[in-house]
Amino acid sequence: MPRLADHDQRRKQITDAARRVVARGGLGAATFQSVAAEAGVSVRLVQYYFGTKRAFLLATHRAVVADAGARFTARLATLGADPEPRAVVRAILTELLPADAARREDAVVLNAFHAGALSAGGADGGTGSGAAAADVGAEDTLGAPRYLITAIADQLRRARAGAASSADGDESGDVDLDAELILAAAAGLTQTLLVDASAAERADALLDRLLDRLVAA
Amino acid sequence: MPRLADHDQRRKQITDAARRVVARGGLGAATFQSVAAEAGVSVRLVQYYFGTKRAFLLATHRAVVADAGARFTARLATLGADPEPRAVVRAILTELLPADAARREDAVVLNAFHAGALSAGGADGGTGSGAAAADVGAEDTLGAPRYLITAIADQLRRARAGAASSADGDESGDVDLDAELILAAAAGLTQTLLVDASAAERADALLDRLLDRLVAA
Repeated sequence: MPRLADHDQRRKQITDAARRVVARGGLGAATFQSVAAEAGVSVRLVQYYFGTKRAFLLATHRAVVADAGARFTARLATLGADPEPRAVVRAILTELLPADAARREDAVVLNAFHAGALSAGGADGGTGSGAAAADVGAEDTLGAPRYLITAIADQLRRARAGAASSADGDESGDVDLDAELILAAAAGLTQTLLVDASAAERADALLDRLLDRLVAA
Repeated sequence: MPRLADHDQRRKQITDAARRVVARGGLGAATFQSVAAEAGVSVRLVQYYFGTKRAFLLATHRAVVADAGARFTARLATLGADPEPRAVVRAILTELLPADAARREDAVVLNAFHAGALSAGGADGGTGSGAAAADVGAEDTLGAPRYLITAIADQLRRARAGAASSADGDESGDVDLDAELILAAAAGLTQTLLVDASAAERADALLDRLLDRLVAA
């Protein structure tokens, strides 16, 4: 038992180090060597725990997604037993936007995985950047945004259930489009917030306005 | 006169090559050497035309923005003498989304500049990735999105001018927020379209829905 926990802790020590390395230098900077050095362990130990570079990068991506999920769950717990749909969507988006150092690092790391997938899927097969690009592709990282769109769409359906029972047939498709637009806007705002310090003071107003415009039918 | 035109053509030959290099391998792949090789000219010639690497990268960024502007102007000309505000906004967004090979390459290049600005602005001063990161920062690339937000806000004001002359004091601020949300959603959709092939078939519906929800007051 203590040994298993120890393994988990060691894996976390390594993926934490990988996140710092990727946040600083992009996906290309993450090698067995650089991450072992950052974690203060041997290259052999990183290889022992993760085997291939691909497995290692996927574990790093999963760790970021899992942390965002944990933060969201903790925030949701503060909303009471039957939270308003809008409050749930706000909680999801709040945990995605880079409003503090931890969420900023996570957003930068997710951005680096996106950039890596771009090179991997390039017209020439990604021969340009090589390295990390070939290891993790778009399909490996689309699970989380697709899940979030579904979760947001569920909340939009709840929000609109009362008002629109006289619905036309297009209702459901509209909800899915609105959910995807909400997540797209949050992703675009994240990009802006990462590079434009002046945007931070507008972030709350933008988030509220987005929900004002897109949660109701 | 012919000499000036020749200079312009030579600069374009070089920035075109730089765009292909950056699209394939990210900002870090763009060196005097790699771009000279891609353009089929000497390193000395690239240095003669652009001097520093920073000047060279900025010229590449400007070339992408200028092409998007030219495409937008051409599209606008097809809309007639007094185009609807919604049609103008749609024309802007259409030229940003990566719906063909040229716009896809441009979107990838802009994405690479964004990623480079991230490393440059990192907490440790970007020591991780070095190379391109230190050369072009966020402030160098924020002009275009800020201009687009202003242009979209102008169209939203036109669209709402008739309906909302009984306006409360918040009107103008709401327009600015909506314009920023529209551009953010387009940026987020661009990120998705770059890596998720299945999103292409939804792109038009998403764009129309975005305009349905955010152009009117």
